[in-house]
Amino acid sequence: MPLVVRNTPRTDLEVVDGLAAAGVATVHEAQGRTGLLRADIRPIFRPARIAGNALTCEVAPGDNWSIHIAVEQAQLGDLLVVTPTSPCDDGYVGDLLAGSLLAHGVRGVVIDAGVRDVATLTEMRFPVWSKVISAKGTVKETPGNVQTPIVCAGAYVRPGDVVVADDDGVVVVPREEAATVLKAARDRNDGELGLDLYHMRGRLADKGVRYVDYTDRS
Amino acid sequence: MPLVVRNTPRTDLEVVDGLAAAGVATVHEAQGRTGLLRADIRPIFRPARIAGNALTCEVAPGDNWSIHIAVEQAQLGDLLVVTPTSPCDDGYVGDLLAGSLLAHGVRGVVIDAGVRDVATLTEMRFPVWSKVISAKGTVKETPGNVQTPIVCAGAYVRPGDVVVADDDGVVVVPREEAATVLKAARDRNDGELGLDLYHMRGRLADKGVRYVDYTDRS
Amino acid sequence: MPLVVRNTPRTDLEVVDGLAAAGVATVHEAQGRTGLLRADIRPIFRPARIAGNALTCEVAPGDNWSIHIAVEQAQLGDLLVVTPTSPCDDGYVGDLLAGSLLAHGVRGVVIDAGVRDVATLTEMRFPVWSKVISAKGTVKETPGNVQTPIVCAGAYVRPGDVVVADDDGVVVVPREEAATVLKAARDRNDGELGLDLYHMRGRLADKGVRYVDYTDRS
Amino acid sequence: MPLVVRNTPRTDLEVVDGLAAAGVATVHEAQGRTGLLRADIRPIFRPARIAGNALTCEVAPGDNWSIHIAVEQAQLGDLLVVTPTSPCDDGYVGDLLAGSLLAHGVRGVVIDAGVRDVATLTEMRFPVWSKVISAKGTVKETPGNVQTPIVCAGAYVRPGDVVVADDDGVVVVPREEAATVLKAARDRNDGELGLDLYHMRGRLADKGVRYVDYTDRS
Amino acid sequence: MPLVVRNTPRTDLEVVDGLAAAGVATVHEAQGRTGLLRADIRPIFRPARIAGNALTCEVAPGDNWSIHIAVEQAQLGDLLVVTPTSPCDDGYVGDLLAGSLLAHGVRGVVIDAGVRDVATLTEMRFPVWSKVISAKGTVKETPGNVQTPIVCAGAYVRPGDVVVADDDGVVVVPREEAATVLKAARDRNDGELGLDLYHMRGRLADKGVRYVDYTDRS
Amino acid sequence: MPLVVRNTPRTDLEVVDGLAAAGVATVHEAQGRTGLLRADIRPIFRPARIAGNALTCEVAPGDNWSIHIAVEQAQLGDLLVVTPTSPCDDGYVGDLLAGSLLAHGVRGVVIDAGVRDVATLTEMRFPVWSKVISAKGTVKETPGNVQTPIVCAGAYVRPGDVVVADDDGVVVVPREEAATVLKAARDRNDGELGLDLYHMRGRLADKGVRYVDYTDRS
Repeated sequence: MPLVVRNTPRTDLEVVDGLAAAGVATVHEAQGRTGLLRADIRPIFRPARIAGNALTCEVAPGDNWSIHIAVEQAQLGDLLVVTPTSPCDDGYVGDLLAGSLLAHGVRGVVIDAGVRDVATLTEMRFPVWSKVISAKGTVKETPGNVQTPIVCAGAYVRPGDVVVADDDGVVVVPREEAATVLKAARDRNDGELGLDLYHMRGRLADKGVRYVDYTDRS
Repeated sequence: MPLVVRNTPRTDLEVVDGLAAAGVATVHEAQGRTGLLRADIRPIFRPARIAGNALTCEVAPGDNWSIHIAVEQAQLGDLLVVTPTSPCDDGYVGDLLAGSLLAHGVRGVVIDAGVRDVATLTEMRFPVWSKVISAKGTVKETPGNVQTPIVCAGAYVRPGDVVVADDDGVVVVPREEAATVLKAARDRNDGELGLDLYHMRGRLADKGVRYVDYTDRS
Repeated sequence: MPLVVRNTPRTDLEVVDGLAAAGVATVHEAQGRTGLLRADIRPIFRPARIAGNALTCEVAPGDNWSIHIAVEQAQLGDLLVVTPTSPCDDGYVGDLLAGSLLAHGVRGVVIDAGVRDVATLTEMRFPVWSKVISAKGTVKETPGNVQTPIVCAGAYVRPGDVVVADDDGVVVVPREEAATVLKAARDRNDGELGLDLYHMRGRLADKGVRYVDYTDRS
Repeated sequence: MPLVVRNTPRTDLEVVDGLAAAGVATVHEAQGRTGLLRADIRPIFRPARIAGNALTCEVAPGDNWSIHIAVEQAQLGDLLVVTPTSPCDDGYVGDLLAGSLLAHGVRGVVIDAGVRDVATLTEMRFPVWSKVISAKGTVKETPGNVQTPIVCAGAYVRPGDVVVADDDGVVVVPREEAATVLKAARDRNDGELGLDLYHMRGRLADKGVRYVDYTDRS
Repeated sequence: MPLVVRNTPRTDLEVVDGLAAAGVATVHEAQGRTGLLRADIRPIFRPARIAGNALTCEVAPGDNWSIHIAVEQAQLGDLLVVTPTSPCDDGYVGDLLAGSLLAHGVRGVVIDAGVRDVATLTEMRFPVWSKVISAKGTVKETPGNVQTPIVCAGAYVRPGDVVVADDDGVVVVPREEAATVLKAARDRNDGELGLDLYHMRGRLADKGVRYVDYTDRS
Repeated sequence: MPLVVRNTPRTDLEVVDGLAAAGVATVHEAQGRTGLLRADIRPIFRPARIAGNALTCEVAPGDNWSIHIAVEQAQLGDLLVVTPTSPCDDGYVGDLLAGSLLAHGVRGVVIDAGVRDVATLTEMRFPVWSKVISAKGTVKETPGNVQTPIVCAGAYVRPGDVVVADDDGVVVVPREEAATVLKAARDRNDGELGLDLYHMRGRLADKGVRYVDYTDRS
């Protein structure tokens, strides 16, 4: 029995936009190297960088009915996150649905399945991160859960978690930790990375690294 | 014993060009969701959109001799469709062959194998949809069938069937149905899609969808 | 116990640059169809074409310490070649490391693993050929060998071998054969390919190819 | 609009059983190296070897309704061949359906998708060749074509074609050629293979093979 | 900073054992077709069927330190569930660790990575479901979380959830729903499946299925 | 121009057999975690464990001529190692060739491609480790190098190197290091592994591991 959860909490858009500015690699690092989606989820055009409140959606294989239900639950600043209930490469989202999502304030889509009409979506600059591009449309026979916690491309995503997506991939930040992670990401961008490089040479001897000159050993 | 079939029938180019204009997603839908090639067959540059009469060709692994034979059979408006007799990622088509194909009126290539010289092909705007890009050239030891029915990337393709290819993928339309499918595609583009969205809400109750308000259930 | 080999021989940069000009497909052909890396090693932007002296580096899974060690061994005209000791998709190279590599004269990176910060690397036009794009950064716990012979993406690469990389893929040329291969590549570009096409028709009868006219046999 | 074709022709079971005895590798060779399904279609237990008349069936993703329709069309000596209309890994066939197929004379299943209850099927010795094993059951919402020509795992299969399956894989023999192929397979088993090995040494010089003694060239 | 959570709740072993008896396909069906792990997680020997309380564990790539930490947290009836923080195929579990797990009451392992010493594990009848078999051992440099919620092979698993594994795959049942799901699974095994088959014919006309007799249309 | 190198050195069979007894996981560990082939190279039956002197062989795609040439170079205790010049899944080795290899003293085959006749090979207990099982036979048109250094499944293998293969995978040991590695493997089996487990708890505090009691944080 599918479930649609209304009025789920969102993360403040100032925090969301701050995380977008930091970018996926930095956010992932700043929250302790967690929350990354599988690397085969790729943008349909580059460059692209957005963040949004997760609007979650489960779809049956070859069936996008629940995406239409999700559109009704959308709010300004949402990012639609779609996962199929079993692996499926069909093109769940096309230009009509993209237009409808845009009109409801949705900033983009992350989907562990396929997308179609990518020429039009690219012209519209409507960003989609997907596992595959496929011309195969879907039917509307079987609704699925909307705005419940899901696993998308290996990551656990709840409604209102922040999803950040750019050319490097996609990361999810739990709603409760979004402000803290943003602060850590900003500190990190301000130079913490330099520290990583520090003291490395000192540790090489401990690790037993041996430097030798080249002789013919090919 | 390889076979080369001459003087195979073609589909009228007006129909072919009409199908190109409709695009892969619409054509696939208009002919009852059939005829799509595997989604890992991707264009070497985007945007690209063509259609043509299938000029079919089987190649031995690592051997492109029969493509050279196919060139001789080409007619204006053809689209070369190549399938290896066992899976192979070599680069069967390069810039020389592309030039030769162009000179014989061929509009592009769909191949369930590899392509090379993609920088030059991109400059030439000669469109190729392939499984892989590979610098590995091929030999000319073993000819294969030309202009016989083949299976390419999961779809059954006969000489003179219409192959439509764009950024979303590749679809094949049987020659006998091309005119009918074109009509259906045009009707569809004129608004039938709107009907799909119609009445969906009415069916939600039947399907047992339940709407609930958010409480802490993460 | 990791090993760093200093003062390894390089190939003359005139030869290296000549091989870059010839391109991967021609070089591969000119040295007898050998030395190609797996076709899933792809450039992060196109077009791109470089060659360099292999600066080799083994990395532990999820750990890029030895890349930092490799930077110190870099010379003008080097091309960093990285292989993980077990398959790993993490993003070993990002913008900071790319800047450091550039500053040490390195022309680009070939890695049988992941790369990150690809938006920035693309703006910098710093070319990287990788198996995957991933936002996941790496740690610095476990150094590996630098400038020892390695297997990268199915090819055997020694320090100072010439690595050529372009839109078609990546090929390695043994240092001792680089000058000879360059000569063969130049001869080839000057027209040898024409010879391949020569005499093909004469051999068709020997191979038993049969030409028939089309009758209804679909 | 799904189609069920009744009273399709079958191949004589004596021919079918002769092809089973010859085995997949020999049959494939005997019909000119054609008709092989993709190599990732594997038996759920080994050893297994059967042949049957193809009872063909298209299924929607995650939906096995048309398999139930196919059962009604089954005749003694059939082998069910199933292909999904888009790639799907669900477990379409389980122990109940296997029992029903057995009761209708079906000898086994070849499916470019998933199978479940493999422990029970193994105990029953009911052979299935599938792309994957998956516990995920299917729904019954969308019927598909039964006994129409299909593409299954890269091969074109028509109702009544002979499908041979063993530990090496699966091959399809067109109904019209089954008797001829059987004869060729029997000739082949009687020793033709020996001829292949014949005269090989004579051709080595022509191919430029050079024999050298080992000196230190590692 | 890795975290080890002690004294997490478990599911009653009578319920756990009941779910094992029902099997993965039935349990998956009984809880509304949810909770299945990816189908590429396969047993190292067949037949095998177990269930246990999830003892969860995150591991760094190429590093099994946290599995050793997890052993200390094990209780009778646990089933170790391991996920790497980035995809890794190394053999995290071997015969020594299996012996240690057995001694602490652990019934088996589910791991989205590799296992080694499978000949010995098979002799011991210690069941492991893994993505791959690999001889590559791991280091002990980087501990990870133990007994925290994880995503393993696409499913969300919390400590004390019930994990059922057999020849068909692996499914997870949330601790709070285990008793209810067991009841539904038992009802289902008692014949509910028959209902699925019921009334199917009546619905065929509604779906537009057309029965035709065979004429030559191959 | 293919090359056949005669009279290449071998490793003493006592050392070879000692390495077989140690097994792949131990040998890999004993030589510093190097030399492992890709994990998708799997045995056609289990259990199986052998070692032998590498008899190396390059094959053209779909062509096994050079395997026949290699048979002539075989000596007692050899293990045939085959790599295709471009990725190919055809069944290069069948029962006839296996019989011929056995007759020439070859203990088994490791091939980064396909094998066929696996039912017969299993009955013969002739062990083969391959990437795939495929009924597709090969032609004899294009000879390749025999007994030259090759890269097979990601590992560099020279004639006379020791190849060890068992249920866990395949590892190569350089000829010059075989005796040393055997000694290290024997020491390791005698208890060195115990040392790994030693002192681990002491290091947990340094790594910042925190132990907490369970409260509701699912």
